[in-house]
Amino acid sequence: MKATGIVVEYNPFHNGHKLHLNKALELTKADVVIAVMSGSFVQRGEPAIVPKWERTKMALAAGVDIVVELPVSFATQHATIFAEEAVRILDALHVDSLFFGSEHGVAEDFSVAAKTVVKNEVAFNHAIQLALVDKKISYARAYTEAFTTLFGADLLDVTKPNNILGFHYALAVQKQNPIISLQTIPRAHAEYHAEEATHDQIASATAIRKLILAGKSEEASRYLPVSSIEVLKNYTGPFLSWEDYWPLLKYRLIQASSEELEGIRGVSEGIQNRMQHAATKAQSFSNFIERLKTKRYSNARLQRTALQILLNAKEQPSSPYIRILGMNKTGQKYLSLHKKNISLPIVTTVSKAAPGLLEEDLRATSIYTLANGLENYQAGDFHIPPILTL
Amino acid sequence: MKATGIVVEYNPFHNGHKLHLNKALELTKADVVIAVMSGSFVQRGEPAIVPKWERTKMALAAGVDIVVELPVSFATQHATIFAEEAVRILDALHVDSLFFGSEHGVAEDFSVAAKTVVKNEVAFNHAIQLALVDKKISYARAYTEAFTTLFGADLLDVTKPNNILGFHYALAVQKQNPIISLQTIPRAHAEYHAEEATHDQIASATAIRKLILAGKSEEASRYLPVSSIEVLKNYTGPFLSWEDYWPLLKYRLIQASSEELEGIRGVSEGIQNRMQHAATKAQSFSNFIERLKTKRYSNARLQRTALQILLNAKEQPSSPYIRILGMNKTGQKYLSLHKKNISLPIVTTVSKAAPGLLEEDLRATSIYTLANGLENYQAGDFHIPPILTL
Repeated sequence: MKATGIVVEYNPFHNGHKLHLNKALELTKADVVIAVMSGSFVQRGEPAIVPKWERTKMALAAGVDIVVELPVSFATQHATIFAEEAVRILDALHVDSLFFGSEHGVAEDFSVAAKTVVKNEVAFNHAIQLALVDKKISYARAYTEAFTTLFGADLLDVTKPNNILGFHYALAVQKQNPIISLQTIPRAHAEYHAEEATHDQIASATAIRKLILAGKSEEASRYLPVSSIEVLKNYTGPFLSWEDYWPLLKYRLIQASSEELEGIRGVSEGIQNRMQHAATKAQSFSNFIERLKTKRYSNARLQRTALQILLNAKEQPSSPYIRILGMNKTGQKYLSLHKKNISLPIVTTVSKAAPGLLEEDLRATSIYTLANGLENYQAGDFHIPPILTL
Repeated sequence: MKATGIVVEYNPFHNGHKLHLNKALELTKADVVIAVMSGSFVQRGEPAIVPKWERTKMALAAGVDIVVELPVSFATQHATIFAEEAVRILDALHVDSLFFGSEHGVAEDFSVAAKTVVKNEVAFNHAIQLALVDKKISYARAYTEAFTTLFGADLLDVTKPNNILGFHYALAVQKQNPIISLQTIPRAHAEYHAEEATHDQIASATAIRKLILAGKSEEASRYLPVSSIEVLKNYTGPFLSWEDYWPLLKYRLIQASSEELEGIRGVSEGIQNRMQHAATKAQSFSNFIERLKTKRYSNARLQRTALQILLNAKEQPSSPYIRILGMNKTGQKYLSLHKKNISLPIVTTVSKAAPGLLEEDLRATSIYTLANGLENYQAGDFHIPPILTL
């Protein structure tokens, strides 16, 4: 059985994701699609709009064969770690290819760039550090500048969000297992993170979340496949945003000493002091982020750091593991074929996992379910088995 | 000017307090009544039902001349520390007498008991430790047993809550400045902490809070002087109980590691582990406490420990200081007479206090004001000057 891997958030699963999934099957000719998906919190340092179990249902209903959770200590990190750990899981699951959407659309160029960077890693990292120190710009900005210095502006425009993410996938593949083939298609019709819906049936997840959070689910529906609409109809919980966790973050920032926050992942350069001060003034999460914005810190960086504080995440990340959130029959067949030959621990029943292995994820989901209206999901993560479908 | 000191919570100020205040003036013949009052949180380890500023208004309106805040690191401790630090403030303010209500009602017996215990302190403390280790009972219980062993049951019944508190005042006076005279009257008509209203116009603060929290303010009014009713009428905020802070406590217990909670004041014998476990199950604060009850831990002890965790209070208490919450003209006159001769720092303007001196109290009140509906009080504690009345 041939497998392709995709890295997703499905926040929520929309028509663009459906196109992407169809293309993955068509172009890679895979028998199995394995999606590595963020869990309760996503890469921009935000809570997912609905619980991971609902997003798993959407993925399976749309045709994904296996959904694996990207552990929270990787899922909520910058692109380098996010991509490295997603690829580690896909590689352990023996995918033949990795398929991703990008603005650029030519897989070969991603491979060339990745190979070159790996060859010149020391010089490349030095260029990043130099840009960081000299220009007081964000890490993402410094990364882009180093990349452009190395390749010029023509090979790959890494100021585009899906190009930079794709480049990190390519880099991870290059470092971990270059036999995995890269496949990409140009993203259709919706700029990543575009706030407004831009096409008849395609809109970015950001635009769709905005509609849903504004209570315009009807309007959001045009951008969702029927399978997602069904799942959302049966979902009785709230749609979540950072504002639901703002009272807890504010409490934590007021309650903790600056020293206690120093050991938190992503806290550096005294940013905790600025956050603690802003917390006493801000009356909403968006206002809190507004008060912290500088050239140095991107919104995503600020949100991610705030999230690590909310989750009390320590520097040391979890060990990688493969938590299966859901599978269809094809996925189950694929997994039993490879089961004995998978180099990372596979978790289907949490109570049987090695003690402490899932600690950070269980805690993150416990905190996620503290939001009003998620009482029914509380403490559930420990007990919920993978969702199995036909 | 002759001054008498009283130690109060005024949670809220009721008819019983009014009687007590009148008796204090009548029996001590004092020109000035100084009340040392708990701030945002009270001795049973609970949030005060209304902010300290409202309670200060009630106290002044009823005739108290000076209201001083008992710092939170003393106000939320067991009777020994609570009494010692309240007396330290009153002594620094040069009171001539200390007036308190008690079931027993004979001041001389409190003095005799205190003198005897001070003389036999080593043996007395040893008896407490012995009872604690042997019988696995609560500290309060062990204290009572040691006391009864020393004096028999006749001198003073310290199983009565106001007798034991009075005894601790007497002990603190004996240790700090035996020149302060003790005065007491029998408490009228309402058993301390009695849950039900027991008399036409007198009820315990516990019973009154219960009525107010149940929305029966009208019914509660019969137990309150007109001056308190007026203050409550003008108060637009919510009436507070532990349930308002339960989401924050639950979050903190889920988010923190057991080791992080170890350094918190009052956390010992692994109680944090039991609390962390109970937090994942309990859906309300009262249910949380219910789950933790044992012979070893009184409700007050459990609530106090939960409160120290909520407030992230470290072992080391604040240095004592005198924060003036309010004064009338008489109080102001008294204070200016003695100003140059007061051995503890006096704080009227927080911004002028020594850096860090009020840190724990400011943080406690910041957390107190996180409750829904207290937004207007947020960050106010730093800026609010003492309430001055005629």
